[in-house]
Amino acid sequence: MADPRPIGLFDSGIGGLTVFRALGRRLPGEQILYLGDTARVPYGNKSRETVTRYTRECAHFLLRRQIKALVVACNTASALALPALLSELPVPTLGVLQPGAARACRLSASGRIGVIGTEATIRSGAYTEAIHRIRPGSEVFGVACPLFVPLAEEGWTEGEVERLVAQRYLSAFDGKGIDTLVLGCTHYPLLKGVIREALGPAIQLVDSAEAAAEEAARLLEAHELLDDRERGGEPHFYVTDSSQRFAEVGSRFLGTSMGRLEQVDITGES
Amino acid sequence: MADPRPIGLFDSGIGGLTVFRALGRRLPGEQILYLGDTARVPYGNKSRETVTRYTRECAHFLLRRQIKALVVACNTASALALPALLSELPVPTLGVLQPGAARACRLSASGRIGVIGTEATIRSGAYTEAIHRIRPGSEVFGVACPLFVPLAEEGWTEGEVERLVAQRYLSAFDGKGIDTLVLGCTHYPLLKGVIREALGPAIQLVDSAEAAAEEAARLLEAHELLDDRERGGEPHFYVTDSSQRFAEVGSRFLGTSMGRLEQVDITGES
Repeated sequence: MADPRPIGLFDSGIGGLTVFRALGRRLPGEQILYLGDTARVPYGNKSRETVTRYTRECAHFLLRRQIKALVVACNTASALALPALLSELPVPTLGVLQPGAARACRLSASGRIGVIGTEATIRSGAYTEAIHRIRPGSEVFGVACPLFVPLAEEGWTEGEVERLVAQRYLSAFDGKGIDTLVLGCTHYPLLKGVIREALGPAIQLVDSAEAAAEEAARLLEAHELLDDRERGGEPHFYVTDSSQRFAEVGSRFLGTSMGRLEQVDITGES
Repeated sequence: MADPRPIGLFDSGIGGLTVFRALGRRLPGEQILYLGDTARVPYGNKSRETVTRYTRECAHFLLRRQIKALVVACNTASALALPALLSELPVPTLGVLQPGAARACRLSASGRIGVIGTEATIRSGAYTEAIHRIRPGSEVFGVACPLFVPLAEEGWTEGEVERLVAQRYLSAFDGKGIDTLVLGCTHYPLLKGVIREALGPAIQLVDSAEAAAEEAARLLEAHELLDDRERGGEPHFYVTDSSQRFAEVGSRFLGTSMGRLEQVDITGES
């Protein structure tokens, strides 16, 4: 098996780089095209209709670049837009929500599961539905944490402010008896430290980026689309706003320069 | 004098409602059309090129509605886009930056002036330039406060987290000897309490919304465009994303229901 076509992956901004990194580790033979919709970031405070339009444009931009599979590396887009778009996409497509939900169901002993995410993700109820489908009878508690994305983007991840913010949001789980918490936004792994501190060591954290990378590997294998070269082609990064800030934050995050990085206009892609 | 055409006013989101309110108080006989670009909010983390494109689309959307004057009620748009767009706009146009800068120059005794704003506004250096033009020899210190907008949008304006965030950002002014601080973002008046607390009572705060309303009145008078009816027509609110959240936050903010509120698509307006 050696399908040399790239995998497409997109997010509203830089959060999806957590998925990019996990995927690169899991499937080192694959080339990845990454699209960050930085001209319209964030998605988490926008409506289903608007997020669906943006998601469609991102997907079609990547499809025109001959991708063999698509990973929607944004929880908000996965929750709000993916169900409606799946049928119109001609390649195997995966969101980050389903793999995170499945992993939480496997890990939880009590079936009492917490989910944190953007306002739009939590309001959609998509995690609750996904978890109930896999494990009926489980109890799901969703809490929106709107400030976590701006904190992560600001690079404030281990200080007093972020500790207080985490305590304030996560105190909503007090008395709920959860044993597992899904980090339902690709930015949140950057705040793992303060989240763990606020919750205590007994609660397991599910990183949807890791779960999605595993699931992507299974999906490609099932469709016989894997590329088993030792090293895949260089990744290509596309952004919809000026690339300077993305290059700075992104290289800090990945620990390497961004290589090929290009600004593009995706408005009206369909 | 009685020109019944409306005044157009736009912002990236709800922040401009501080200007809307100040303008309504100052000019009760005028009808105002308000546009919030909520599908692409915020502007403060985006590039000059992208903010200019968005600003042009907002302006032309309102121009097609027969406005007699335009108020750019967003500091980021005023700083990054307005200088380039002024010449192509066929009606008297005003940003919030110039009036705020002018008021700070009048109020400051020492000529040592602080400015806080979004990352894009501060990086542009537009306040520094404007202040130096009015009062050469003054010293201007700019500090970006990226978390203030999400805090205001979240309604966290008077608690411990926001106090700490304000202290952390504003400690950059320690030892600078400023006597005046420009709130260079229309969201920031919502955080006046914690900002004042962090700075102490000796420093005067300049609210660019109030300053812009004064300047708009002068501009309309100079162009003989005032409408001196006792009460202007009902305002009309346009948003580019679903209007529900805007209606909730907006009515809480204005203390009244939003009346006519409509979702519109402005992509490609020119």
